[in-house]
Amino acid sequence: MADPPPTRGLADVVAASTALSDVDGTAGRLFYRGYDIHDIAGRISFEECVHLLQRGALPTRAELDTFAEELAADRGIGATAELLLPHVARSGTPMEALRTLVSALSVDDRDASDSTTEGTRRKALRLVAQTPVLVATYHAVRTGRSVPEVDPTLGIAGNFLLQVTGERPSDRSAQILDECLVLHADHTMNASTFAARVCAATLSDIHSAVVAAIGTLRGPLHGGANEAVMRMLREIEASGADVGDDVRARLARGDKIMGFGHRVYKTEDPRATHLRAMSKELAELTGRRSSYDLSRAMEQVVLEEKGLYPNVDFFAASVYDQLEIPIDLFTSVFAISRMSGWTSHVLEQQLDNRLIRPDSEYIGERDQKWVPIEER
Amino acid sequence: MADPPPTRGLADVVAASTALSDVDGTAGRLFYRGYDIHDIAGRISFEECVHLLQRGALPTRAELDTFAEELAADRGIGATAELLLPHVARSGTPMEALRTLVSALSVDDRDASDSTTEGTRRKALRLVAQTPVLVATYHAVRTGRSVPEVDPTLGIAGNFLLQVTGERPSDRSAQILDECLVLHADHTMNASTFAARVCAATLSDIHSAVVAAIGTLRGPLHGGANEAVMRMLREIEASGADVGDDVRARLARGDKIMGFGHRVYKTEDPRATHLRAMSKELAELTGRRSSYDLSRAMEQVVLEEKGLYPNVDFFAASVYDQLEIPIDLFTSVFAISRMSGWTSHVLEQQLDNRLIRPDSEYIGERDQKWVPIEER
Repeated sequence: MADPPPTRGLADVVAASTALSDVDGTAGRLFYRGYDIHDIAGRISFEECVHLLQRGALPTRAELDTFAEELAADRGIGATAELLLPHVARSGTPMEALRTLVSALSVDDRDASDSTTEGTRRKALRLVAQTPVLVATYHAVRTGRSVPEVDPTLGIAGNFLLQVTGERPSDRSAQILDECLVLHADHTMNASTFAARVCAATLSDIHSAVVAAIGTLRGPLHGGANEAVMRMLREIEASGADVGDDVRARLARGDKIMGFGHRVYKTEDPRATHLRAMSKELAELTGRRSSYDLSRAMEQVVLEEKGLYPNVDFFAASVYDQLEIPIDLFTSVFAISRMSGWTSHVLEQQLDNRLIRPDSEYIGERDQKWVPIEER
Repeated sequence: MADPPPTRGLADVVAASTALSDVDGTAGRLFYRGYDIHDIAGRISFEECVHLLQRGALPTRAELDTFAEELAADRGIGATAELLLPHVARSGTPMEALRTLVSALSVDDRDASDSTTEGTRRKALRLVAQTPVLVATYHAVRTGRSVPEVDPTLGIAGNFLLQVTGERPSDRSAQILDECLVLHADHTMNASTFAARVCAATLSDIHSAVVAAIGTLRGPLHGGANEAVMRMLREIEASGADVGDDVRARLARGDKIMGFGHRVYKTEDPRATHLRAMSKELAELTGRRSSYDLSRAMEQVVLEEKGLYPNVDFFAASVYDQLEIPIDLFTSVFAISRMSGWTSHVLEQQLDNRLIRPDSEYIGERDQKWVPIEER
């Protein structure tokens, strides 16, 4: 059959319409529902951001209070996830645990069989509330700690830091993680969001869609990159090598330097600007400058040698590390934030649905003839 | 930004190259690795089909013997799935249970962290072996039965019927399910397979990819359709209405008639030809003709009224029903078969990977200005 050549990786193919986020890759700008990320980062809380994405507008104070109460009331994770937690905390990696636990949430969700917009909206809210609890509980269980009770004076970011580290975070640490969650919340048709929409477009349920997204985020070419960045920084630090020499040696070997370049941005990722500033601020606050200084040095070498800019994953790594989040939870923290975007995309897909079913180009053998097995 | 108009649902967009299957929608032909489905359906076992897809060629007798031994040895489902089964069998629907159980498989998989081609190939084989055991055990547990031991003289299809019904199937019943599994094994860039490839293209793991696929298959616009077909047949049967009157009334109300039409086929789906024949044969064997006769009558009315042909889901419903598979497991049976295609597509994606990351068209508000919450 005379198929057109495949658009490998669907680069530059417009696969969907969305009112959730927009990227201007040339100018390096990102918008959530029309708000420039530079205008809202550090000014709205993650809870406000979730409201903006899921409900369509920044909340008034009264709306935010109600919304935050609903989020707080929906943190419970249900009997199936509770049963699984000790087991997956012992034997599973963080992202396979999170994928399995979020899949298990639907078994106990009182709206599991409600596929109306209202039912899906309730599940969307609940998934945002439950995900940080799953990640923090997983970590507490595997380290043999009990999970601290949530602190009603803290938001999602502060309570996550409390539960994952076992200690109440400083106000500024909580604010910084809160801003990180805002920065990672949505980003047009990235691979995990696209996987969620492909799933939702069969009119499957929202849990199936976000489970597909979690598994997709896990990949090292997507959310898995932030962990790879931190491991690389640690390696370079431990080796004591000159950063420039090390990076040039990696490039000479043909290694991919994680955390640089992006299919959409041709200039600096606007999220990196904020993350760099937070990484610097934390280094100054704690007096432990090494991961920030190393990141800055690396950024300059990669720009000189390859002309590539840091993406969202690069400075997120040193920020999370300075917030004392374990490296192997970095991608899970990304998932906690992106859950707000995924769920909003599922809601949007449901409101104007068409099955997402592309064509493929056949490149294999033709005209094969079956012969009985004894004659092969 | 001046984006091109979106190709809604990616219809006719070539998203990937594959050597696994090819469809000629105009002629109504389907090929697996160059073999016409009409040439191999009923002539190769599901095990041979899995070998063809995963390993690239129909096996010799010696290759098939080794392959079948490996499949038999790999049926064990691991401690996490065992722990989950009683719980999800009590509280979960079949497809949410399967999604959660398959996700849990990776926790105990000895190759979980092996992302080489060989490691992924071993996991691909194991997933095909484990999936029918998960579905059958789920059903046995929820009905309070113990799961019969596998019978080494039966293949995957026969053992599944044995374990799901609790009785040894007739040779012909086992052959018929075996042919059904061959017919459902792969179908180019269908939504669940595409979701698996989007996931795999981030270099995530094969369990994440097939879990994404299971959640996607669940949707009523995809694999969920076979259950909807059977429920519709039951409804019509129970109402005692004339089939023609009933179908015309549904069409007049604007209801979608499940099991008809396909984005790719403009004529009869070649799989429907085989499934219709098997449904007829089973009706003659059992003497219970109603679901087959009803299906035939319905097929004629829908063709007259809408010009639509039955797709793979339509006659699969009455076949599975006559094989005494519970209606709510029909989509899970589809998953047992399609696991062979999903895993083969993941292997293929890994061998020549590029991140699948499309663009989107922004249709929302622009130039929003942040104002402090107290002023909103």
